[in-house]
Amino acid sequence: MARQSLQPSRDPQDYPFTHRLRTRFAETDAMGIIHHAAYLPYLEEARVEYLRAIGHPYDSVRAGDAETSGGREGGRDFAVLEVSVQYRRPLRFDDEVDVALVIGAVTGTTFQIAYLLSVGDEVYATAVTVHGCVDGRGRPARLPAWVGELGGP
Amino acid sequence: MARQSLQPSRDPQDYPFTHRLRTRFAETDAMGIIHHAAYLPYLEEARVEYLRAIGHPYDSVRAGDAETSGGREGGRDFAVLEVSVQYRRPLRFDDEVDVALVIGAVTGTTFQIAYLLSVGDEVYATAVTVHGCVDGRGRPARLPAWVGELGGP
Amino acid sequence: MARQSLQPSRDPQDYPFTHRLRTRFAETDAMGIIHHAAYLPYLEEARVEYLRAIGHPYDSVRAGDAETSGGREGGRDFAVLEVSVQYRRPLRFDDEVDVALVIGAVTGTTFQIAYLLSVGDEVYATAVTVHGCVDGRGRPARLPAWVGELGGP
Amino acid sequence: MARQSLQPSRDPQDYPFTHRLRTRFAETDAMGIIHHAAYLPYLEEARVEYLRAIGHPYDSVRAGDAETSGGREGGRDFAVLEVSVQYRRPLRFDDEVDVALVIGAVTGTTFQIAYLLSVGDEVYATAVTVHGCVDGRGRPARLPAWVGELGGP
Repeated sequence: MARQSLQPSRDPQDYPFTHRLRTRFAETDAMGIIHHAAYLPYLEEARVEYLRAIGHPYDSVRAGDAETSGGREGGRDFAVLEVSVQYRRPLRFDDEVDVALVIGAVTGTTFQIAYLLSVGDEVYATAVTVHGCVDGRGRPARLPAWVGELGGP
Repeated sequence: MARQSLQPSRDPQDYPFTHRLRTRFAETDAMGIIHHAAYLPYLEEARVEYLRAIGHPYDSVRAGDAETSGGREGGRDFAVLEVSVQYRRPLRFDDEVDVALVIGAVTGTTFQIAYLLSVGDEVYATAVTVHGCVDGRGRPARLPAWVGELGGP
Repeated sequence: MARQSLQPSRDPQDYPFTHRLRTRFAETDAMGIIHHAAYLPYLEEARVEYLRAIGHPYDSVRAGDAETSGGREGGRDFAVLEVSVQYRRPLRFDDEVDVALVIGAVTGTTFQIAYLLSVGDEVYATAVTVHGCVDGRGRPARLPAWVGELGGP
Repeated sequence: MARQSLQPSRDPQDYPFTHRLRTRFAETDAMGIIHHAAYLPYLEEARVEYLRAIGHPYDSVRAGDAETSGGREGGRDFAVLEVSVQYRRPLRFDDEVDVALVIGAVTGTTFQIAYLLSVGDEVYATAVTVHGCVDGRGRPARLPAWVGELGGP
């Protein structure tokens, strides 16, 4: 199984892409802060916007559109194999959060993403997700070639 | 389009089935109560347990197993066409909630369910969902015959 | 108890405010569409943006800031007393949804909001929420005066 | 900051407590499996049931009840400082999941929990959460003495 190897930097300069989102009231909990489970959809939303920004919208990756997914072999999903989050300060309702991300540790079938979540100049959380490429039936599949070009050294 | 016609009774005796669940901390919000959106999965969980209790587990309905779904024509989903909830008292973390339900207003392709949510003897909420039967591609389909037998007069 | 009386129009022209959001993959379900429970946070997000747009951010309403909430008496919450949603077409992953809203049926302690959810020119859902004003301890309280000015005839 | 040090065992015998839950349809996603973010509330639900089982219901911990929380100093929350999940097989709708857990790495203000998620005899996921004790205002606080007794030598 793939193993998290990325160490998320706390310097925004180390991240080539940032997506801004706003926390929802529905995501708060009785401690008055954003519930820790709500961060995972934040990471996912940032991933989706990143794929769109680089011309490979996740919708097309899933549908297997030849020109965007590089796939003549049909659709692909980037299944989450592993996730870790370090919560440093509590996010609150209505915070505007910058989710920065960078791809790394690309192999033939997996890749990793490191994340930095900040509000203004303050770091609120860091995270890493490990992804595996699967086909429409959930079976491991080779990554589209364009993914490899994102995370190279 | 189907239109909600059931009026949920506030008397538990009017409901043939009850499912007990416990609220989660993840479902609370910054008001210190269960967020109103969390009630919809409660209703769904009760529906699923009801279908299991009467010998038609939703899994089998979706898969189109002949003996349980009555379907030789393949799987069915009971899409939600309409939902309404009346919140009478706020549920809180760790409450044990009894979700009672009754089916009614069955037509050839739709049915309705009325719900009563209580904690102990107190009514906390009532709700109604309207469902439409769809096939595996989301197209309207006839209800399995056994549904009609549940909601009759 | 307050009772839903608004009938949501299907004409975007009847709504003074619109908020655009994008559906998340986390909000999809195994039917391949946006799960019906995910719509409630969409309505809430649109309410929050509306309050911000008219100069009464919900954060300030909750904190009881005199200048924005009209409250010398402390914070207010707009508790959800009732919600109903009519699902007309299924939203899908990555859809850009316009959530239009209008306030109406304002009383001394409650108000209602009607919603129209569309993608492009197509209506996907309509909804109504009924809200009651409560103080920091969840007790019914008078609405700030500015709410009344929003929903008047 | 606390750092995850536990390594979750894949042998159920290493876990003194197990909580069984059933996945919800609302927790599935368009890949037809349980969305990865839904696992965090599963871990939380198991923690809550564990605290109840050992006579320290989380409700009482939060309220600061002297006899259960060991707290004359008021309520405590066990904030999540860190979480990591390794997804090994995809959970599906209606699966009955056994969430086993064990506490370890207890310090004066933090502790960790390792988790094993299985369906029948198969391991589906492992996870670790790191928790910090905070008071009602979110400030770091000493752990109740009884937590130290749970986490072994």
